[in-house]
Amino acid sequence: MTAVTYELIKTDPRSKARRGRVTAPHGTIETPVFMPVGTAATVKAMRPEEVKELGAEIILSNTYHLYLRPGHDIVREAGGLHKFMNWDRPILTDSGGFQVFSLGDLRKITEEGVEFRSHIDGSKHMLSPEKSIEVQTALGSDIMMAFDECAPYPADRSYVKDSLERTTRWLKRCKAAWKDTEHQALFGIMQGGMYKDLRKQSAEEIVELDLPGYAIGGLSVGEPKDLMCEVLDDCVDHLPADKPRYLMGVGTPDYLFEGVERGVDMFDCVLPTRIARHGMAMTSAGKVNIKNAQYERDFSPLDHQCDCYTCRNYSRAYLRHLFKCNEMLSSMLLSNHNLHFLVNLMKNIRKAIEEDRFLEYKKEFYDKYGTF
Amino acid sequence: MTAVTYELIKTDPRSKARRGRVTAPHGTIETPVFMPVGTAATVKAMRPEEVKELGAEIILSNTYHLYLRPGHDIVREAGGLHKFMNWDRPILTDSGGFQVFSLGDLRKITEEGVEFRSHIDGSKHMLSPEKSIEVQTALGSDIMMAFDECAPYPADRSYVKDSLERTTRWLKRCKAAWKDTEHQALFGIMQGGMYKDLRKQSAEEIVELDLPGYAIGGLSVGEPKDLMCEVLDDCVDHLPADKPRYLMGVGTPDYLFEGVERGVDMFDCVLPTRIARHGMAMTSAGKVNIKNAQYERDFSPLDHQCDCYTCRNYSRAYLRHLFKCNEMLSSMLLSNHNLHFLVNLMKNIRKAIEEDRFLEYKKEFYDKYGTF
Repeated sequence: MTAVTYELIKTDPRSKARRGRVTAPHGTIETPVFMPVGTAATVKAMRPEEVKELGAEIILSNTYHLYLRPGHDIVREAGGLHKFMNWDRPILTDSGGFQVFSLGDLRKITEEGVEFRSHIDGSKHMLSPEKSIEVQTALGSDIMMAFDECAPYPADRSYVKDSLERTTRWLKRCKAAWKDTEHQALFGIMQGGMYKDLRKQSAEEIVELDLPGYAIGGLSVGEPKDLMCEVLDDCVDHLPADKPRYLMGVGTPDYLFEGVERGVDMFDCVLPTRIARHGMAMTSAGKVNIKNAQYERDFSPLDHQCDCYTCRNYSRAYLRHLFKCNEMLSSMLLSNHNLHFLVNLMKNIRKAIEEDRFLEYKKEFYDKYGTF
Repeated sequence: MTAVTYELIKTDPRSKARRGRVTAPHGTIETPVFMPVGTAATVKAMRPEEVKELGAEIILSNTYHLYLRPGHDIVREAGGLHKFMNWDRPILTDSGGFQVFSLGDLRKITEEGVEFRSHIDGSKHMLSPEKSIEVQTALGSDIMMAFDECAPYPADRSYVKDSLERTTRWLKRCKAAWKDTEHQALFGIMQGGMYKDLRKQSAEEIVELDLPGYAIGGLSVGEPKDLMCEVLDDCVDHLPADKPRYLMGVGTPDYLFEGVERGVDMFDCVLPTRIARHGMAMTSAGKVNIKNAQYERDFSPLDHQCDCYTCRNYSRAYLRHLFKCNEMLSSMLLSNHNLHFLVNLMKNIRKAIEEDRFLEYKKEFYDKYGTF
């Protein structure tokens, strides 16, 4: 019995886009899917019921943050992350790798793992493949991610090659540390930077381990969009069709379309909630900066085509007022809308694939909004 | 047809406590009642549906704040405060008087009104009885409060006497400016500081105007609790039994009991939401400071005897974690609990009055918690 299975429902005849379904211990996820991020065991400014109500079927939470605060032992004692945070649908946890590598001078990479200092109090810690799996096991997520290195962009070939090979060795150690295969799945992560042959090498090495799913890491890290699309297009061809594919950290509307077109099933990004806290909304008429004076007496909803809680009940003038007054309800309502926008966009994308009009829907979207 | 009526349901045989019902254009309010405060057209960190769900039947909003931001003309254009903020139950607005008097050096009192500078941008404004009613009319609240001066404590007799007499003159101007008596009620405010004879004078002057309700202002402004109780006890005797009585700015549990015992029907206070944002909770086992290390592994609910959303779904350990991480959900959940605590306390008080055991209930509460 494996914790996570993937069912391929339909493939777009004119692209690699595919309609599928991931079954996980805490529920079923229709794919392609966007996963809201709940870094510190909370999707910021949202009650979990609200995240559910807008249609999210899975969220992502961050191992690095939960390891430091409150500590994975506390989450385990609480009965796991689902119970701790009152979310009963699937959870995917990252490995903490991306965060510790982002610490720059505060971390040191060895074959054993990454030694780092906490961004909160400077205390010294070690994250390794075994430690990451230990933490994720304590959290009890449906999907655990392998501990990998996400190479920076640009990076030279020899660095990327060494890095991806270490990532493979780390993946083997993650797999060895992964015990409860019935209740938690482990996804491997392909690296290889922008080098297609290295991507192929990485894919072959990780696919050999026969895991329940695979992620594409190290993309959307600052490279031009064309390059991202080209590399991604190639990446997917090296991954098996019967397993879910997850493009990490991607979440702008145009990148979601590009990812889906190239056969990606899962996405995540902090963007919708982060920009919400800065007064920015994604709408069917493009970006709205709610701070702008033009909305002072605009009593229409944020998005005329949206039926989310925010758009059903509040005006742009009210949202602007809340933002100007620094009221929490501003972040609450804009986060709700932005998450709804992306979750709903994915719903429309799934429908378009089902009806053999994904490319038309994509074109329609680009014609209207460009890169958003 | 008058906008607000009061029905006396039952009087406690051993105290002045009374069980009543206020009928307002947007709904019925069972009294004694605690009114959550929504200063800037939002009860901080709460969706209006959540405020309703916890049982609040009326909220208070602040004229001073809404006059400055977004401006009462904008709220009027939005269709009034109810529609602007998505709250369809009764709203009481204060007059802005208390806030402008609190501005200290930034304001100047004349017979005409109060000239002041905005705490936001230093711009110059004038608030007068006519202006306050104009703003409150634009807001469309069910209950408007008269523009008064809340004298400081301590204050000498001659200052307080001059001040209360000006407050009466201002009340007459408020009444003259109050046009839509069918959809908005005007409450007068008794002043007089800690001087019983001045309180009597003020009461007689305002009651003569035959308004739909009366408030007691200028109490709980720093004086000892015993003195507050003594003055309050006397105040209520000068107010008519067939009109609601509102003790302004009072909201700690022990003060609510003291107010109810002396015949007060309505209360408001920012305390429950303000302390929530600082990690403090009011519980049936006393105050809880969620920051404390003792709650790190406390997986029990905030309040064992509470059935609010927060207590049904989250542990103290989780709430502490959210607070430590500065997550908005911390304020959202603690505000919800604290408001529920006070709204529910008033519900229990109403039941105790109905069952002729108010004094016993009060004693029980004090024996258990002291002054909280």
